[in-house]
Amino acid sequence: MLEFFFKPKSICLVGASTNPEKLGFKILKNIIDGKYNGRIFPVNPNADTILNLKCYKNVSEIPDFVDLALIVIPSDYVCDIAEECGKKGVKGLIVISAGFKETGQEGQKKEEKLKEIIKKYNMRLIGPNCLGIIDTKNRLNASFASDMPPEGKISFITQSGALGTAILDWAIKENIGFSKFISFGNKADVNEIDLIEELGNDPDTNVILLYLEGISDGRKFIDIGKKVSFKKPIIVIKAGKTEKGIKAAISHTGSLSGSDIAFDSAIKQSGIIRAKTVEELFDYSLIFSYQPILKGKNIGIITNAGGPSVMAVDTIEEIGLKLAKFSPQTIEKLKSFLPSASNVYNPVDVLGDAKADRYEKAIECVISDQNVDGIMVILTPQIITQIEETAESIVRKSKQYDKPVVTCFMGGKRVEQGIKILKENKIPNYFSPERGIFSLKAMFDYRKSIEEKSKGKIIKFKVEFEKVRRKIEYFRQQKIDIIGDIEGREILSFYGINVINSFLAKSQQDCEEFLKENQGVYVMKLVSPDIIHKTEAGGIKLNIKEPKEGKKAFTEIIDSAKKYKPNANIIGVQIQPMIKEGIEVIIGVSKDVQFGHLIMFGLGGIYVELLKDVSFRIIPITDIDADYMINEIKTSKILKGFRNIPEMDINSIKDTLLRISQLVSDFPEIEEMDINPLIVKEKGCIAVDVRLRFEF
Amino acid sequence: MLEFFFKPKSICLVGASTNPEKLGFKILKNIIDGKYNGRIFPVNPNADTILNLKCYKNVSEIPDFVDLALIVIPSDYVCDIAEECGKKGVKGLIVISAGFKETGQEGQKKEEKLKEIIKKYNMRLIGPNCLGIIDTKNRLNASFASDMPPEGKISFITQSGALGTAILDWAIKENIGFSKFISFGNKADVNEIDLIEELGNDPDTNVILLYLEGISDGRKFIDIGKKVSFKKPIIVIKAGKTEKGIKAAISHTGSLSGSDIAFDSAIKQSGIIRAKTVEELFDYSLIFSYQPILKGKNIGIITNAGGPSVMAVDTIEEIGLKLAKFSPQTIEKLKSFLPSASNVYNPVDVLGDAKADRYEKAIECVISDQNVDGIMVILTPQIITQIEETAESIVRKSKQYDKPVVTCFMGGKRVEQGIKILKENKIPNYFSPERGIFSLKAMFDYRKSIEEKSKGKIIKFKVEFEKVRRKIEYFRQQKIDIIGDIEGREILSFYGINVINSFLAKSQQDCEEFLKENQGVYVMKLVSPDIIHKTEAGGIKLNIKEPKEGKKAFTEIIDSAKKYKPNANIIGVQIQPMIKEGIEVIIGVSKDVQFGHLIMFGLGGIYVELLKDVSFRIIPITDIDADYMINEIKTSKILKGFRNIPEMDINSIKDTLLRISQLVSDFPEIEEMDINPLIVKEKGCIAVDVRLRFEF
Repeated sequence: MLEFFFKPKSICLVGASTNPEKLGFKILKNIIDGKYNGRIFPVNPNADTILNLKCYKNVSEIPDFVDLALIVIPSDYVCDIAEECGKKGVKGLIVISAGFKETGQEGQKKEEKLKEIIKKYNMRLIGPNCLGIIDTKNRLNASFASDMPPEGKISFITQSGALGTAILDWAIKENIGFSKFISFGNKADVNEIDLIEELGNDPDTNVILLYLEGISDGRKFIDIGKKVSFKKPIIVIKAGKTEKGIKAAISHTGSLSGSDIAFDSAIKQSGIIRAKTVEELFDYSLIFSYQPILKGKNIGIITNAGGPSVMAVDTIEEIGLKLAKFSPQTIEKLKSFLPSASNVYNPVDVLGDAKADRYEKAIECVISDQNVDGIMVILTPQIITQIEETAESIVRKSKQYDKPVVTCFMGGKRVEQGIKILKENKIPNYFSPERGIFSLKAMFDYRKSIEEKSKGKIIKFKVEFEKVRRKIEYFRQQKIDIIGDIEGREILSFYGINVINSFLAKSQQDCEEFLKENQGVYVMKLVSPDIIHKTEAGGIKLNIKEPKEGKKAFTEIIDSAKKYKPNANIIGVQIQPMIKEGIEVIIGVSKDVQFGHLIMFGLGGIYVELLKDVSFRIIPITDIDADYMINEIKTSKILKGFRNIPEMDINSIKDTLLRISQLVSDFPEIEEMDINPLIVKEKGCIAVDVRLRFEF
Repeated sequence: MLEFFFKPKSICLVGASTNPEKLGFKILKNIIDGKYNGRIFPVNPNADTILNLKCYKNVSEIPDFVDLALIVIPSDYVCDIAEECGKKGVKGLIVISAGFKETGQEGQKKEEKLKEIIKKYNMRLIGPNCLGIIDTKNRLNASFASDMPPEGKISFITQSGALGTAILDWAIKENIGFSKFISFGNKADVNEIDLIEELGNDPDTNVILLYLEGISDGRKFIDIGKKVSFKKPIIVIKAGKTEKGIKAAISHTGSLSGSDIAFDSAIKQSGIIRAKTVEELFDYSLIFSYQPILKGKNIGIITNAGGPSVMAVDTIEEIGLKLAKFSPQTIEKLKSFLPSASNVYNPVDVLGDAKADRYEKAIECVISDQNVDGIMVILTPQIITQIEETAESIVRKSKQYDKPVVTCFMGGKRVEQGIKILKENKIPNYFSPERGIFSLKAMFDYRKSIEEKSKGKIIKFKVEFEKVRRKIEYFRQQKIDIIGDIEGREILSFYGINVINSFLAKSQQDCEEFLKENQGVYVMKLVSPDIIHKTEAGGIKLNIKEPKEGKKAFTEIIDSAKKYKPNANIIGVQIQPMIKEGIEVIIGVSKDVQFGHLIMFGLGGIYVELLKDVSFRIIPITDIDADYMINEIKTSKILKGFRNIPEMDINSIKDTLLRISQLVSDFPEIEEMDINPLIVKEKGCIAVDVRLRFEF
């Protein structure tokens, strides 16, 4: 779809310059030096030739068709040139020039105009304010980055040109192969979603790296991420983690979510891999690009030093991989040739005097064991260590098996040549054991996530859609945007969620009468749309049995509420049966600017806020998403039977999560919601307090 | 004290060899190549000269005194040679040879014998089974490591020779200066504690790095660590984090602690800095060795690219540093020369076209601001970036101010020369912004910890020592090693801890009578030394008011307990007033094999186990340690007034922690203890359930 950017048959460069200091010169030189094999038309009204190429006064003068136009002239003139390109039939524009949206209102206008022109002529645009693109396979360096990285299978999409230069520079020094490099600047037209899709279909790309600062369309990002992740790994790093996307609002859910939570949920739901640091981005890119996928969690380690292998084992246990348990045959084989002081169990210590042959035999034993899914070879440069030969042994063994192999050749000067051999043969070497293990874990997580994503289903329950529609229509007309328990529970019940019975008392007398007629133990709660934290307002009374207790409680609640917030609208007090068994959980909904509705799950009580032990997903969620939401929180153990607490009905929580997801999908005008608490019992669960806010 | 190891006037090498493949040759060559300026005496009965040095048949034949003997002969002959060395008056031995404790019982015996000989002749020993030592200042390479690293101020002590080789190799490639390098192998004599002390007094060392697999003496490690940390930073990395040191025992505390928790507590209490990975070890060593200490938490950032600076800011906020707020003057100054598109607030964006002069001016503005405690300069290699010149600008500014400066020159090939300039001038450059910020944080934590350590006091309360001594003496004689609530509370009360009143009922009638005479609301609890989890055994009844309720509860508790554990020793049921206000916390004590007694603090209830949200310290603790223990847990907010819960008396918890620390220090036969719960109220706290185990 965007092929003309990467395989143009002809390029024009508007703003080509004779001055070697100018971008317009450097870019032309890059195109030529890169050995681009199509036609090149420099455009500059004041030059006859540049770098031995004939120069044209303007685009229309070019005597041939043009697929791609690179533009490096001051922003004021870009729109005119774009118009000219449109008329000429150019397919793609790369606007390198800055001076657009990033500079303020004036620039924003120019960018809008540019977008209109693009649309009018049905062209596509990368930029403005970008570094350009590189395609090593097609020998195209349409950028002002100095050098082209070596050819390879990693493609990199970056929102920051500056970071792009750093990454290209790294790739060149480390001899890491890249396929495509795209700096997309202000993304006035082509954005990360288009590019992920394009690279998803690109046979020359096996790993997509992505540096992002903001998302263009959260929903589409998830969808395309999901689609492409099935084909190849996408690794993303995003700057701006700590910024808050959602201002604290009426709900717990709102105050617990932030823009990074939405992004992180999107990542989880789409199968995209998140790198937390630049180092992780690089580390992961190597293993994914070079090695077959890890199929299980069992890791074998071969080492010539105890300490570093213990560090690897520590990391394996900490992050949830497993130290492989070798088969008896493997152990016998290892015993047959290793010195008696060696450890033949995992990690295998071939000892400090191991030469390459001993390493190779040990690797063969371990990698061929069917209980082993991937291996790490650790080497420290000891006195008789054969560093290059060992590297070659590893390469040989790695080629024979379809299991990932990573190495950790520790040191500097002496291990340099060995590492070079490994790299040339696509064995990722890590500076420390921990980083190698983390990279294997990223692979494991990716595979698991893709597997599960293929199973997850969005379930459609039979619900009373029409009744809810009418209810909400009424609220819309009445301009009621916040509703409390009573209406909230009604809506939930229409969607098949079990809710508590409740009686609304408007006076002392109401309370007295209700309690006379209905024996039992009750809770009394303030009903007021203006008071969110009822406990703080003294608006809750427990253990009410007698009519006279009820009367007293009513007065106390009302008085206390009035004191707490004098002009609050107080509707009355509701009386509910007190549920003694079960565990309180919370389910909430909030809305992120980029990604839309988020659903939250956590344990109830003050711990939700204190520990922020909650999980989020973007709506709609699949059944597998719901499972993960429940299992992800640290306190979920308590629901599964803990000490003297019996196992609770986790399926009923899952059911409720999925029904809420459906409700909010059906009625996106629901902006926020808290079911707090939802009480889970040994059988079933029951929604007690509900708050909802609409945005009409 | 160990000076003769590093500055020997004469060395003999026992096992010197003419064969270039042998260690005995390589070591001799290393000593000569290293330009050691004392006398060298190779010892080998079968050679006349090696490497042009006269060879001696044995140690006694050497015609001069010998300070240091290096031994590289098979382990069977080492003891004889050691004996000979002793007679000769040698002060220090470095036994490189392996074949001792690490190989099993036979070797263990040899090692014991070697230790005896050392003692007999009042010699000191490094090794056996080690790589040797290097002292760059004194030009001594008494090791079989190939090359000597450049001279510098970092000293490295390693328990693993293999890891040592890797680190030396790294230092050589990266041109990082080292002062001393000591591989101490089996530490038959000289151990990490001796070496930390020695390096603490060494004027040529400004940072001590330490790789450990096990600790020789936990208590001494803390003491010496504390002493030396005041003078210079000690950075430690330890392999073996996930192994468990304490088997799950009678107490919650026991099951929540492990050997790494003890080690981690020791680190915190001694002011030693812990590196979690090899990378962190290197990263921290550079900043501590090269830069002045960070005096506050306010960081200024200067960058030519947005993305990386956002990553730095994310990290600053995540780990508890602060983005400095510039003074109005600084902002004015920055505005005066930066282009209008620059950000003059922190982080300062000098823009992609910044040359060295713009960087330098901006750095000057930021580093001179008194609201800034340290700075990070980020550079991406953009088209006109002056990489080397900018490095020189940074060096210049860094030399003018006593504030730490770190850099992040991102990339590979193009930034290489710039990074070299930075390194040569002791500016630590980090591959990613995150690592630079983490390193600044390590500095901040170190300074804070040292400051607080100097203030912390171990408080001596006036207590009834003698009464407790007599009580424990009685248990010892009676061979009672586990005691429960009743005696436990008595002991606590002798140490000034407030405990709950309790009545022990042995029959239904006891209950009935007690409740008739003492009106109130009570809890009834099983008393049995054999049942730990009372709730699970149905051994707790709440809300007892009436005598008949009490009778019924007694029977139910006893029946339930008998069913739960048929042959349990059941003493009776205790009746306690039910405390409704307050928050339950737990204080516990357990014992680590290496470090001795640990004290634990956490919130009570099932969350202790579910979330493991607890803090540990090694006993005795200071008042500052107690403060930290309370504030360290995530749930501590709840004690400080949260929502409708009032602020609790945190000082009373602190007081209890300190009194328990004193109790256990006075009576180390207390092996384990749980006060669970200790109920903290708005004023004071009260110990409710207590369990104690002695190890007589």
